[in-house]
Amino acid sequence: MRYIDAQAIEDIAAGAAVLGTGGGGDPYIGKMMALQAIEKYGPIPLLTLDELEDDTLVVPSSMIGAPTVMVEKVPAEGMVTQALNLIEQALGKKAAATMPIEVGGVNSIIPLVVAAEKGIPVVDADAMGRAFPEAQMVTFYLDGHAAAPTSMTDERGNGVVMYPVDGVMSERLARSVTIQMGGSASMCDYPLSGKQVKQSAIPGTLTLAQEIGALLRTARNQETSPVRMLLDKLGGFELFTGKTVDISRRTESGFTKGQATFDGIDEYRERRMTLGFQNEHLVALENGEPLATTPDLLAVLDKETGMPITTEGLKYGTRVSVVAFPCHPKWRTEKGIETVGPRYFGYDFEYVPVEQLVRRRGEKA
Amino acid sequence: MRYIDAQAIEDIAAGAAVLGTGGGGDPYIGKMMALQAIEKYGPIPLLTLDELEDDTLVVPSSMIGAPTVMVEKVPAEGMVTQALNLIEQALGKKAAATMPIEVGGVNSIIPLVVAAEKGIPVVDADAMGRAFPEAQMVTFYLDGHAAAPTSMTDERGNGVVMYPVDGVMSERLARSVTIQMGGSASMCDYPLSGKQVKQSAIPGTLTLAQEIGALLRTARNQETSPVRMLLDKLGGFELFTGKTVDISRRTESGFTKGQATFDGIDEYRERRMTLGFQNEHLVALENGEPLATTPDLLAVLDKETGMPITTEGLKYGTRVSVVAFPCHPKWRTEKGIETVGPRYFGYDFEYVPVEQLVRRRGEKA
Repeated sequence: MRYIDAQAIEDIAAGAAVLGTGGGGDPYIGKMMALQAIEKYGPIPLLTLDELEDDTLVVPSSMIGAPTVMVEKVPAEGMVTQALNLIEQALGKKAAATMPIEVGGVNSIIPLVVAAEKGIPVVDADAMGRAFPEAQMVTFYLDGHAAAPTSMTDERGNGVVMYPVDGVMSERLARSVTIQMGGSASMCDYPLSGKQVKQSAIPGTLTLAQEIGALLRTARNQETSPVRMLLDKLGGFELFTGKTVDISRRTESGFTKGQATFDGIDEYRERRMTLGFQNEHLVALENGEPLATTPDLLAVLDKETGMPITTEGLKYGTRVSVVAFPCHPKWRTEKGIETVGPRYFGYDFEYVPVEQLVRRRGEKA
Repeated sequence: MRYIDAQAIEDIAAGAAVLGTGGGGDPYIGKMMALQAIEKYGPIPLLTLDELEDDTLVVPSSMIGAPTVMVEKVPAEGMVTQALNLIEQALGKKAAATMPIEVGGVNSIIPLVVAAEKGIPVVDADAMGRAFPEAQMVTFYLDGHAAAPTSMTDERGNGVVMYPVDGVMSERLARSVTIQMGGSASMCDYPLSGKQVKQSAIPGTLTLAQEIGALLRTARNQETSPVRMLLDKLGGFELFTGKTVDISRRTESGFTKGQATFDGIDEYRERRMTLGFQNEHLVALENGEPLATTPDLLAVLDKETGMPITTEGLKYGTRVSVVAFPCHPKWRTEKGIETVGPRYFGYDFEYVPVEQLVRRRGEKA
């Protein structure tokens, strides 16, 4: 067990924006909440999966909704903790720990706020290894664990406890409640035993986010570019370097959907790339051909500093590197691809792992 | 206390269709469920408001959704009782009785099913004195009682417990959950103390429905027409007699919305009347002028038998009497009219009590 302090929160927030693949909510808001929380309650204990007792109750805590709404409608103090309280009440059992349901974006940080407020530890793991837009897109769902009971709260004091029959129904109920709660809300789902979490969660991802954040913080004075260092650390690939020329976003059915277009610079001059997103980046296309697709991670980085840029942060003229990282192997299974592959999001092509796509393009060139 | 037997169920169902003002769901489905339930569990005790203890928990039980969906998607056995169980679990207290939230349509009968299955009495009262389409349209809301906790269940086994901050939020959450549950669902809301129910409920409405049903059952051999007998009993007015010439219905946002047009016969020849509805009939218009409007009750009756016809049952060519009855005085207050008056439903005219509208027309003629 180690403790999360203010520096760790800064680094996790920066690293989580990379793993958020453009979505997951702006970590800045969560960061401010978490910094306030540790100032009030002290550093937060972080448990590794190994340190988790089998028979304890672990309740993941998160925000749900369109990131475009989340940046406007900041969560009220105690609101996410209230969602966890509803789960405890429904189960008649206290949570021994909380954890991120996704490590990307604001949801890497939200559990730190809850942990501080509740005086419980956070587990160094999550159920995506990145961010995904829908509630059933978790390793817990792949492994057949029940989402129920789930809970939601909003800043006005509304609360809901749900007992959906499966993860897909959980998403449908939660999304429609989110809309009624004004487009974003707090959520707890997949309250599981320590044993189940150890079987299914992706380990060490908060530490990974922190390491990425620390790398970006210290990379500026190094010889290698920050983007290159990040690619080396995560085994990733540069797909494109260009300027943002077009960005269209809409808030629809509780999501932020849209696409961004980039005109190439340097060795990518005369070429054009498009990113499609639903909260998170889903596909990178050139002439309609995929360069990389979900479930592999896509990130837009500032070309010079390597700092990640969310879909809300993308602005005309920004010079960016678009990069891709291989996803966790759990997403490359049949059920994984069925749940989060390009076809699920309406794209008419199969998932091919990013390293294969890169190799094929290299062979053609 | 008296007991509800099979004959009483038949009569309540028929009378509830009149008080349902064209909506409230088809009582036939509820009737079949209730007849089955008393065959299995025996007659159901019916409590008057006076017989209710102050400190007991009373949990209204109902169906929510579009009547057009309800007739297709029959509730599963035990499904509504399961919604009541969720309330008991949330409050950590057993319900001493259930009651109708509305006396019109299927929701007059649903509490009888729950009462039989749970072995508890039903209260002879409701919170509308008719049917209305939205969950905040109850005397409990007018009197400032909390809707929360509310619960919903569906036939697939999904369940939700909600803690809305007010009655309007309760409706918004419930309606969106209804849509995710397939367009209709079971619901319990406004779990109140016996004392609160005695203060706010409209008394004797199940008995009233039963009396209306008995009247219709025995009216055929009398000299006076069944429609006339009904008008005398409820202090109502005949607005129009005609043939159904047009009916348009759509299922939208969890409601059945539309309008029906009638061409006059007999003394109404050469005239045309239109009924607008959202689950329930809301306004009766002739040349755009209101003949009667919500919150007064509008009913379409078979011209010969006096049997009520729901909006789903309206067919081309049916010869009908359109009648109106004054609503309970609680709906004629400022908050009542604000909550259920014509302007709430988007009509651009003030509420005028039906008896005044009838008198004005009489003076003009």
